[in-house]
Formats: sequence, structure tokens, C-alpha cells
Amino acid sequence: MTEIFQRPDGRAADQLRPVRFERNYTRYAEGSVLVTFGETRVLCNASVEEKVPPFMKGEGRGWVTAEYAMLPRATHTRSPREAARGRLGGRTMEIQRLIGRSLRAVMDLERLGERTIQIDCDVIQADGGTRTASITGAYVALVDALRKLQREGLLLDDPLRDSVSAVSVGIVEGTPLLDLCYDEDFRAEVDMNFVITGSGRFVEVQGTAESEPFTTEQLARLQRLALAGCARLDLAQKEALGDLL
Amino acid sequence: MTEIFQRPDGRAADQLRPVRFERNYTRYAEGSVLVTFGETRVLCNASVEEKVPPFMKGEGRGWVTAEYAMLPRATHTRSPREAARGRLGGRTMEIQRLIGRSLRAVMDLERLGERTIQIDCDVIQADGGTRTASITGAYVALVDALRKLQREGLLLDDPLRDSVSAVSVGIVEGTPLLDLCYDEDFRAEVDMNFVITGSGRFVEVQGTAESEPFTTEQLARLQRLALAGCARLDLAQKEALGDLL
Amino acid sequence: MTEIFQRPDGRAADQLRPVRFERNYTRYAEGSVLVTFGETRVLCNASVEEKVPPFMKGEGRGWVTAEYAMLPRATHTRSPREAARGRLGGRTMEIQRLIGRSLRAVMDLERLGERTIQIDCDVIQADGGTRTASITGAYVALVDALRKLQREGLLLDDPLRDSVSAVSVGIVEGTPLLDLCYDEDFRAEVDMNFVITGSGRFVEVQGTAESEPFTTEQLARLQRLALAGCARLDLAQKEALGDLL
Amino acid sequence: MTEIFQRPDGRAADQLRPVRFERNYTRYAEGSVLVTFGETRVLCNASVEEKVPPFMKGEGRGWVTAEYAMLPRATHTRSPREAARGRLGGRTMEIQRLIGRSLRAVMDLERLGERTIQIDCDVIQADGGTRTASITGAYVALVDALRKLQREGLLLDDPLRDSVSAVSVGIVEGTPLLDLCYDEDFRAEVDMNFVITGSGRFVEVQGTAESEPFTTEQLARLQRLALAGCARLDLAQKEALGDLL
Amino acid sequence: MTEIFQRPDGRAADQLRPVRFERNYTRYAEGSVLVTFGETRVLCNASVEEKVPPFMKGEGRGWVTAEYAMLPRATHTRSPREAARGRLGGRTMEIQRLIGRSLRAVMDLERLGERTIQIDCDVIQADGGTRTASITGAYVALVDALRKLQREGLLLDDPLRDSVSAVSVGIVEGTPLLDLCYDEDFRAEVDMNFVITGSGRFVEVQGTAESEPFTTEQLARLQRLALAGCARLDLAQKEALGDLL
Amino acid sequence: MTEIFQRPDGRAADQLRPVRFERNYTRYAEGSVLVTFGETRVLCNASVEEKVPPFMKGEGRGWVTAEYAMLPRATHTRSPREAARGRLGGRTMEIQRLIGRSLRAVMDLERLGERTIQIDCDVIQADGGTRTASITGAYVALVDALRKLQREGLLLDDPLRDSVSAVSVGIVEGTPLLDLCYDEDFRAEVDMNFVITGSGRFVEVQGTAESEPFTTEQLARLQRLALAGCARLDLAQKEALGDLL
Repeated sequence: MTEIFQRPDGRAADQLRPVRFERNYTRYAEGSVLVTFGETRVLCNASVEEKVPPFMKGEGRGWVTAEYAMLPRATHTRSPREAARGRLGGRTMEIQRLIGRSLRAVMDLERLGERTIQIDCDVIQADGGTRTASITGAYVALVDALRKLQREGLLLDDPLRDSVSAVSVGIVEGTPLLDLCYDEDFRAEVDMNFVITGSGRFVEVQGTAESEPFTTEQLARLQRLALAGCARLDLAQKEALGDLL
Repeated sequence: MTEIFQRPDGRAADQLRPVRFERNYTRYAEGSVLVTFGETRVLCNASVEEKVPPFMKGEGRGWVTAEYAMLPRATHTRSPREAARGRLGGRTMEIQRLIGRSLRAVMDLERLGERTIQIDCDVIQADGGTRTASITGAYVALVDALRKLQREGLLLDDPLRDSVSAVSVGIVEGTPLLDLCYDEDFRAEVDMNFVITGSGRFVEVQGTAESEPFTTEQLARLQRLALAGCARLDLAQKEALGDLL
Repeated sequence: MTEIFQRPDGRAADQLRPVRFERNYTRYAEGSVLVTFGETRVLCNASVEEKVPPFMKGEGRGWVTAEYAMLPRATHTRSPREAARGRLGGRTMEIQRLIGRSLRAVMDLERLGERTIQIDCDVIQADGGTRTASITGAYVALVDALRKLQREGLLLDDPLRDSVSAVSVGIVEGTPLLDLCYDEDFRAEVDMNFVITGSGRFVEVQGTAESEPFTTEQLARLQRLALAGCARLDLAQKEALGDLL
Repeated sequence: MTEIFQRPDGRAADQLRPVRFERNYTRYAEGSVLVTFGETRVLCNASVEEKVPPFMKGEGRGWVTAEYAMLPRATHTRSPREAARGRLGGRTMEIQRLIGRSLRAVMDLERLGERTIQIDCDVIQADGGTRTASITGAYVALVDALRKLQREGLLLDDPLRDSVSAVSVGIVEGTPLLDLCYDEDFRAEVDMNFVITGSGRFVEVQGTAESEPFTTEQLARLQRLALAGCARLDLAQKEALGDLL
Repeated sequence: MTEIFQRPDGRAADQLRPVRFERNYTRYAEGSVLVTFGETRVLCNASVEEKVPPFMKGEGRGWVTAEYAMLPRATHTRSPREAARGRLGGRTMEIQRLIGRSLRAVMDLERLGERTIQIDCDVIQADGGTRTASITGAYVALVDALRKLQREGLLLDDPLRDSVSAVSVGIVEGTPLLDLCYDEDFRAEVDMNFVITGSGRFVEVQGTAESEPFTTEQLARLQRLALAGCARLDLAQKEALGDLL
Repeated sequence: MTEIFQRPDGRAADQLRPVRFERNYTRYAEGSVLVTFGETRVLCNASVEEKVPPFMKGEGRGWVTAEYAMLPRATHTRSPREAARGRLGGRTMEIQRLIGRSLRAVMDLERLGERTIQIDCDVIQADGGTRTASITGAYVALVDALRKLQREGLLLDDPLRDSVSAVSVGIVEGTPLLDLCYDEDFRAEVDMNFVITGSGRFVEVQGTAESEPFTTEQLARLQRLALAGCARLDLAQKEALGDLL
């Protein structure tokens, strides 16, 4: 590759930041994972609730949903709390809907039975990619919560149909990059997020031209970066879960 | 093409619904367009306001933003008003942010000068594709508002850098389709929205696997359908604006 | 009559603006009427819901209620959406309560059975008299919804006891006028709205001295103008509904 | 008069309930009046604020506005506080807008100078007619606040152009009645509120057919009752203010 | 005592302001008491509701809860209504939680049976000590409501285990004072509220160093003042309720 | 001491849980401390903002304020987010007002200069005593933020007048205990929180009889426990800050 743009932390264009999963980070949640993508840290807690939303009652199917928030000082300058402002912002709603859809896409909700897995993603520190880190960590917390149900005999079949992870890609000064940190994201001409299954298929594709519309060739290049990135995240998830021999 | 799925209205898989733009639909807005995609009807009003949001004051640049709403009985069953519920839903916020970004992507905001174009997209009747119809109609209303400013001598340079339109694509019973109506959208395995410039580049790409993750090949096929669809929408916009010939 | 004030559109003091009803304006609502009073256009959709508010459950009576909103750019300058501000304004609440009361006044709610007719009045374009146009159009939409219930055999008796329409009157530069447009309304010393049945009786009388209290004689004159105006609106409603001859 | 309906408290049809004004009821407000209409008691406080709403700044004119609330247990059964529910109800908004308009109608706002008189009407006990008692008491509080400004030399000209009071009338079992108590109001076929100046002219006329539309003759009869009632209220106000002889 | 600080109304440091209870102040509430501590006046209404909050249903126990509000012009300068601002402030919430806890502390909720006593404390005029006056008056209103239930045979056992009253104490210019008025409270270095039973035990102790942290000795002195003050309030409550002799 | 109650973790009645302060826990906040009291963990971030609230502008004094929140799954069962419910609860408001007052009590706000220190206390895991841990940790974060200002030359004088910490005490099965964990707190007859300066004086005293009013002797015993506990917390703070020797 003949990249022009030098990444602030010296990474190659197709290199992920260091990724880490700390399982059982808090003691009460059925699944609790602190996920780290470089300087981005998100606490992902999975709570099992033995009920479903009203509109699903009696259908025998379960539900997976997510909420997302940033601590006020997760960022360079403090942002006001949404609780204090009395309403969720549009960005927050977009992200939490995305996390929920991504996890449901790899679940067999009938096998889950009439219960809800509620995922809370709270960003402790933000350096870009909080939504992709959230999805990637939430998957690990979800698996831990499901295994706990299985150990307790409350769940017989495995409701997981696949694994799932997410990564951001973007174009900065003409260079396609994998897993953007905040400074890169801030300067990106194009910003995309991919949610991809362990089997390499797409769950979500979201791309935005921040300043310059992009071509079919650029889209193809970003897609390849994302597929490779998620393949490595999938491996890291399996390793954290002890599923690699 | 050897499609299996028969579309309810007999269209070919790569065929748009009838598209129509009624300009000057209301009398006060600087640009006012009723856009029709089949049975979907959206009123797009562009209002010029000689000020910018507080965070942009004094920078000499303009702003384009959008709001989106559905009339309560635009749909088969009535939905409660968001004004009565006291807060905007996540879907509404996602859509209005998307419309705003899409229009800004083809604008030179410095040339616009320190003023705001506020676009209101109100769905009179909904049969799928309301966000793509909104973007496509809003562009025409935006052009009308800009031309009015030019006629009045308030705007010297043309702030438009390109044109923009949007279309939905999706996979229904395995068949990739262009411009889904509500019944198709409801049954789609994959649902994507593309926002594409007149020059054939991507502004927004948003794809969601509703029930089944999708492959690289399927993504490529949907992308081609969208590019062809937006090329035709671009033509229809130019025709409506009297820019052909 | 020896009027001094010349109306902007050349109308006589006791003349209505052109009135039009477009039935079946949208396809999903059980009754859907676009009503036009001159440049004022209001979409009135009647939705049938097979339930009643909690406080009426089990009493065997039905309910008719209304909501009212203006599209942001229905007016000369754009007004912010009430959904975005998170609460309904006092004017909106007053108007929607008025529309609901006016329609209930001509209904036998026991005959309606335990169901709700929800009327949505959305102002597409506003040039004065939006509340009176709303009531007048809503009545036609209500009739259409009731007839649909009758055709489907869901309603045996006719729950309508009378017809109803509404008109504004006012005093401008000392001259009593019928059916004020926005410019007249803006300059009126006195502003009144009358809701009157087809049989010529009063359902609602609301008069406000905007700048100058008014006398018994002036009130009597305005009352006569309103009675004549509503008699003509009643005819126009019957004609639109195909009930003449 | 040959009335059929016997009033619960034995009053004649055209008789007011006992009316009382206690001035200086609280010690901080510039005008503070507890007004009593029979068992209805409303505390009306007038506060002077040396500023006007933003939209009036610099125009040299003053403003009079009102707020209205019921204590939760002013009524037979407790009603939830609007502060706890987080929004004002439609009835509250209607009433406070009415009180404000009624007082402004007798004021010369230019003479008031660039200041606001804020009237707070808080219902201590409610037995019908709370809005008419509020207007009638608020006028006395307003006069007290204005006189205080005059005594302090802050106001040179008298901004009052007339006095104002209000009364309810209605038809119960076919009988037109003046100043309805709650039990009468509850059973009324027609319910009207009149706001009338000391000089006998109308400021507000609001009539609603609760169950039966009413005729021109009935309206005329109610109007006469109201004119006579307000004439007596005007006298009572003057007496309370020490303006008789 | 060798105090330096001269109280504005000439009271001794350990002297209460004149206290008065007007029972049956309004006619609908089951208990209705206007309590006066000097210039502070609070209307305390107790309403009996034959239901409990959802989380207590079916447990056979009752509930006592309280709401607190100030009329906008209870104070020197007008404060905006919380209903108009759409949310309760922190101070209001703190006070109403305190009143509710204080009353529940002397109640046997099982003996009350599955019903709620809702206390509304509305401050008519505020000159310091509104929360302590509220608790002290609310207790009398509560007793009246319970006695009414007993007279009607709806309550067999007495659910009261003790009586309760409250008083403020504080340190002003180094002098410990009982029952502070607003001017004293405003200048206090330390501000405490004690809620104490008739048997001389503590229900609530809340002390805040407004400007200067306080010592163990000062705390002990304030505690003694409060115990003596509440002993006298207890007597005044019993006298008002006719329980002396 | 002859205690009857055996503490779940075997502590003596007057023993604190293990306390730990992790400074620089996040990277952007000017002070960032993760404080641990046993299983209770609170992240305290101090943000410096070079402005003050509007009501303090131009007075040359600074401000210290705090916000408090619990992550939804900090507790045994998940609690809904206050941001999602759209309003802060009464408990949250009480706690964040308490934290702010406690810190301001040891600050010379004039020396701080016209800037705000905003403290955010976010509970990661809750096992009782979250408000006292918050105050104790917030003090350390505040010191770190002030020292940073001093190092950068933005602050010349030390605005700290004293140090401050907080601890809970309570009576469980008749036994007075220091620093209650959740299980103890849940069963406590009396629950108190003390905020105490390094010099052993009281900033806040808040005691509540949850089920049984308490005596002067019990209050004295709890006070002694709290004084001893805060003395040890003060030492731990100094040690964490490197101020011992």
C-alpha cells in the first residue's frame, strides 16, 4: 500500500488499535465486560430480565435491546448529561438502536424464550469508535449472560446463530484507514461503520461522506478493510471467551 | 434477470415507482415541493432564515438543516403525534439528521453566506421510502429557495456543488429490488438506503440486515440497483426544475 | 350596508371566501377531506379506533376527539414544531378542544357504540380561519367515516343528530366582516368564532375584543353575519357529501 | 320570571352569590386580593416586574399577563398537580390566557411603561366560576399594584381605561341562571362566561353547548343576565377599592 | 444566655414565633389546616384515597405521602411556577420527601389499611421555616383525616404511634437561635431542621454549614434548642386538636 | 463494645471497609479518581470550566457544583436510566446538591477566581454508601484539578480552606455501625450521613429514622463513630494525594 497519511500512533492503515476485554468487570450484571479499543473504554453490562416488552407478550419469543451513554467527561471537554437536559439526543438514539439491531441479528429470539437481555453500554473514555467498541464488547457480555442462563438450566438451546463485531473505517487525506481514533475521525472525508458476523456477512453498513462524496472503488476498499478488521475482532472475542482451544 | 418475487404492482425489480414533483405547492415557503413516489407523498418546504445557529455565528458560513414528521394518519393505522407525546422518537431523529447531512453534502456553505435553509419534510401519505422521497424532494425545494435568493440578488454565487437524490433497495425473498413499497419493505430480509449525487458518487450508504446478514455479492448487486435508480431520479429532478435542454 | 372598509380580495362584508372540500384526499383514513377556505387549506383525517379512553370503558358510549397542528411553514414565517419544543402551546390546546366539543355536540355518542373517532386537522397553508375551516372540514370527514362504518355493517343507527360548521366574524376599522383572512384578522378590533348547527342553533360562541370592547348592537350584527355564513357552509357541506337532491 | 329550576342555595335565577374581596391578603405582593364568590375562593396576587418579555423590549410599552392554578384539593376529589405531571393542561392554559387578555383590554399599555404586571390566580377552594372570580379579583389586585406604583412616583398617568369583571351564566333544566355553582355548572345544558367592562361593553364572550345547542333567544337572555351581574360586580369592586363616594 | 445577636422581632434566642392552627380551613379535604409560624403560612390538606401505589398493592398496608409547593408570590420576589417550567426543582423534591418520611415515622401503616393519605402543603406566605411549619401543620391535618375515618367507622384501630412536629434552628453571628425567620435564615452560618416526636425522639436531623463548619458543642446546643421548641409545638398541636384536658 | 449484630463481612462495628483511591483514572478530566469503599466504586471526575453560572457573572468568585448518577446495572437489579425517563429523581437531586454543598464548604470561592469546577460522580458499582464515597472521592479529584491549575500558573492562592470526607453510620438491630454496606443499610432502623472536615467539624449532618425514632444517646454514639471514621478517611485521602510526609 502506498499511503500518504501518517497515523498519529504510527499504526499501519489496516491495523486495529490494541483490543482488550475484561470480563466480570462488575459483580451484579449477568454479563459485564470492559472493552478497550486503544484509549476508548466502554463498560458493557448485560442484564437478564424475565419479561418482554408489552407488544411481544405471550408470543414465546425473547428480546435483546441496548442503551448507550457517555459519561460527561469521557471526552476532551465535558458534555452535559442527557438526564439533566431531560431528553436523549439524536446521536444517542441512533447508536443504541444500532447496537440492539446488531445483536438481534445473530440471535434466534425464539430459542431465547420470553425474556429480555438488556445491554447497557456506558462510555468511560472516548477516543473514537465508541459505537463499534460497544457492539464488539456487548457481544461478549451477551455471551456471558447466555452462558450463565445455560449453567443455571434456564436455557437449553443456544440462541446464538453467529458471532458479531463492528469496526469503523474511513478516508483521511485520501487514505483509507481501519479503526479511526478521534483525531482521525474528526478529519475524515468519509466515515463508515461496519457490523459483520463471524461468518463474514454484513449486518449493518453505514457510510457518510463528511465532506466529499465517495466512489464505488473507495467503497470497495473500505469494505475490504472492514472485513479484515472484523475477522481479527472475532478472533479476539473468541480468545477472551476462552473459545480458542 | 430471473427474479422469483412478483412485485405487488407488477414492477420490474429494477423499476422505480412513478415519481412526480409539484413545485410551488404552498405559497409562503421559499421552496415548496410535493414529491410523489407511487403512493408515498411528502411535502418538502424550504424556508430561508437570515441567521445561523449560535455555534456558527460570525463564521461567514451558512447552514442547511431538516426536520421530518409524519401526519398521524399517513399510515394504515394512526400513530400518536410526537408533539402530544412530548418527545421525538429515535426513528424521526435518525431521518431528519440524514436529510440534513445529505443536502449539506452537495452545498458549498461558504457561498451560501450566513443564513440557514430549513427544510421541513412532512409525510402526507406513507407507502415505504419516505426518507428517500424526502431527500429527493427536499433537493428540488432547496434549489427553488436558492434560485429565489439569486433572483432577489441576495446570493451571487451558486452554492450547489452537485445534485443529490436517494432511493431504497432491498432483498425480498432473495430477490434484490429497487424502490420498495411498504409491503415489500415489511417483508425485506435486507433494507438499504443510498444517497447518491448527480455525478454518481455516494453521500450516504445505510444497510440493515432485518433478518438475514448479507454477502459481499448481494451488497454489490444492491449498490448497482441504487446507482441506476438515482441516475433516473436525477433526471426527473432536472426535468422538474426545467434544467433539461 | 354602508361599509367603509375595503376587503383586500374585493369581497362584500358578508361574503365567504371560496370553499372547497376534496374527499378521499388520502387513502388510509376512514374519512379524509382537504378543506379550502380561500388560501387556507386544512387536511382533516378521521380515524376509527375500536376502543374508548380508559375513563369511558364499559359504558357503551363512543367518543369523538380531535388534534390540531400547523405545518411549520403553513404561515408567512416559519414557526418551530411543537414536537421539537416538547410541548403543545396554549393556542393549539384551545383549538383542538374546541374542534372536539363542536363535533360531539351533534353526535349521539351512545349510538356510536364503544369506539372512538379521532379527527386530525393539519393545516397545510394558513390564511386566517384555520379553526373554523378545521371544524367545517372535520364534519365532512366524520360523516365519511361514519358512512364507511355503516356500509361495513358495523353501525346500524345514524349517530348524527345534526350537521355543524363554523365561521369567523370580526370588526375591522369599525366594519363587521364575515370569514376574515389573515390580514383582516390581524387588524381586527373584535374577533369572534361561531360554531352553528345545520338547524341554526349555537354550539360555540367565542368573542374577543382585541383592542376595543364591543357593544350589544355590534354583537348582534356579528351574530347575524355568522348565522348567514354557516347556513351557506352547511349547504356546501351537503353538496360535497352528495346530499342535495 | 317563571323559573322551574330551584337553585340548591335558594338564590333567584338572576342573583349573584355573596361576593367579598380581602385586600392585602398576603404581605409581599404589590396587590393581593382573596376574592370569594360563595364557596369559591381565589387568591389573586399582582407582582410588578421592571422588565417586559423579550419580544417587547425597547418598545416603551408594558405588559399584563396571568397564571392560574388550582390547589390539588380545591375540589371534591384531589387532582394531581400539573407541576408533578410536568405539563400544563389545556383547561389551565385556556383560563390563564383568558385572564391576561381580559385585563389587558382595559389597560393602556403605553402608559404602564416598560414593566410587567404578573397576576397569579391560585384557587384555594372551587365551587364553580373560578375563572370569572379570578378575573374579577385580579382586577382589584391590579388596581392595588398600580396605585402602589403611583404612590411611589413610578407611574404618572393612570393606565386604566375602564374597569372589568366577569361572570358565568348558563341554562340548567331549561332555566337561564346567573353565576353558577359547581352543581349547577355540572348539570348545565349551556355554559357561558362573559367578561364585561364597567361601561357595559364586552371584552370576552365564551359560550359552549354542553349537551344541547342553544337559540338566538336563549343567547340574548343569557347576555342580559350577564350584563346585570357584571354591573353589580363592578359596584362591589369599586366599594372594595373605596371608590364609592 | 449571653447572646450577642438581636433578633429582628425582639424574640429571645430560644423563643418560637407565634404558632396558630386553623382547622377545617377548606371544606372538601378530609383534614385541612392553615398553620402559621409568625409570617409563614402554609395550607396543609390531607386527602384520603382508597388505594395505594402500585408497588404496595395487596400487601394490606397503607401509605402516607406528601407534596409541597410555594405559591409564586409567597416570597419577596416572585418565583416561576414549577408547573410552567415543566419539572420539580431539587429543593421541592427534598422537602416533600422529608414531609412524607416524617409523617410515616409515627404511623403504623398496617393499621391504616390499604389506603393512602396524601398531604398537600402549599405555602401561602413564606418567612422562613416553611418545611418545619409544613410538617407541624400536616400532622394536625393527618389527625383530622384519621379521626374522620374513625367517625365513619372505616378505621377501627388508631394508626398513630406518636405525634410529630418540626422546627428549625441555626447559628447567626455566632448565636444559636430557635425557629429562624427568613432574614435570620439568610444570614445563618449553620442551618438545621429537626423533626421530633411527642416522646422526644428524633425522626430527622438535617444540618448544613452554610458558611462555617460547626463543632460538637454547637451541634449539642442546637439539639437542645430544637428539643425544647418541638416540646412546645407538640403542646400547641394537642391544644389545637382539643387533646389537652 | 458489646455488639449483638454480626456484620456480613466480619468487620467490627467501628471499622471502615477497605478504601482505595485510583487517581488519573481517565485521561481527559483535570481530576479523575476512582474511589472504592469495599464493593462500592464511584468514578469522580473534576472538570474545570472557565466560566460561572449566569447569576454569578462578574462577581469575581468561582463555583463548585456536582452531578451524580448510577450506571443502570450498578445495583443488584437494573434501574432505568434517568435520561430515558426524561427527568432526575428526587434522590439523585438530593445527593448531587449534597455533594456540591460539601465541597463548597471547604473552598474559598473568591480565591478560585471566576471559574467553575464541575464534579461528576458516576457510580460504577453500588454496595451502600455511594453518596459518602462520592464526596470522599470528589474531594481528591477536586484537589487534583486545583493542583493542575496551580501548576499551569492559572491559580496563585490555594482556595482550599480545609479537607472534607463523608461516612455513613446507622443502627442495625440496635447496634450502632460505621460505614454500612447495602445489606446493613437495607435493614437499618436509623441511617445517618456525616460530612466532616479534616479539622473535625461538621459540614452536613443528615439522619433519618427509617423505622424507629432515635434518642439523644444514640445520636451521640453515631456522631462519635462518624468522627472517628472521617478522621481515618482524611488520612487515606492525604496518603493518596502524597501529602503524608
